[in-house]
Amino acid sequence: MRILGIDPGLRTLGWGVIDSVGSRLSHVANGLCCSGEGDLAVRLLSLYRQLTEVVATHAPDLAAVEQTFVNRDGAGTLKLGQARGIALLVPAQAGIPVGEYAPNTVKKTVVGVGHAEKRQVLHMVQLQLPGCAPAGPDAADALAIAICHAHHQGGAARLKELRA
Amino acid sequence: MRILGIDPGLRTLGWGVIDSVGSRLSHVANGLCCSGEGDLAVRLLSLYRQLTEVVATHAPDLAAVEQTFVNRDGAGTLKLGQARGIALLVPAQAGIPVGEYAPNTVKKTVVGVGHAEKRQVLHMVQLQLPGCAPAGPDAADALAIAICHAHHQGGAARLKELRA
Repeated sequence: MRILGIDPGLRTLGWGVIDSVGSRLSHVANGLCCSGEGDLAVRLLSLYRQLTEVVATHAPDLAAVEQTFVNRDGAGTLKLGQARGIALLVPAQAGIPVGEYAPNTVKKTVVGVGHAEKRQVLHMVQLQLPGCAPAGPDAADALAIAICHAHHQGGAARLKELRA
Repeated sequence: MRILGIDPGLRTLGWGVIDSVGSRLSHVANGLCCSGEGDLAVRLLSLYRQLTEVVATHAPDLAAVEQTFVNRDGAGTLKLGQARGIALLVPAQAGIPVGEYAPNTVKKTVVGVGHAEKRQVLHMVQLQLPGCAPAGPDAADALAIAICHAHHQGGAARLKELRA
């Protein structure tokens, strides 16, 4: 099972691809999509094209996107929302089911505590995906989201077995 | 010059297409894209497909999207942002420049006052586009955005002439 994790952002969108076989996880690839400067529509198109390329190259079976933290900064929330629209659209367009996880769920699953720091997430990502070198904090977060989805999928699969 | 106006929304996205020849405007078509029920990613994909169909059918030269009103409701802002990401992406993907207008600018241009009511917008849209029957308030707003863009384009063109 190949899983794509996405950490959406308008300026920088992190992505990470892992393989999950039983309880064994391995790193496939990770990177950043940068929207550059210019009109908002052109920047969103750039993110769309880069992410579409990632999906075409790595052909994931599943995808998961971080649920955006809604804060008091309305303009920031709106920007993130627009990038998140692209992050959800691209896998859906390729027929890939898209899961969503709150940041605290991701941290709790990967690190063990919901309020883990960035460097703890990075450490646990590297521990669980030996040999991976995240392209940046957003790529590490994206790999963490993919790991989180793998664990929840595993849980769902085990529950299914138990119920059968 | 054919102009597509878009009033973004996650549940219902309004669109309106007009032709602008000199100072003469005429109605081409208008409608609503509805995202239905289900997963957010699937709903966004549905909006994307419907809006892509509108662009393919009517082949606009320009597009304009309403700038979202950022309020205190973070979850609402996020939803709107996601739909707005799709509204900006689709014309950009077709190579169409996308303008953005604040709701007050649209109302001021179309009705004459920035705080006009919905029914005043509808009235002025029908006055400026004889024979048009908007599919709903969101479609009327989308036509108003297209009219606003036509006026601003005209203004820009006249300024260009004066400066030449």
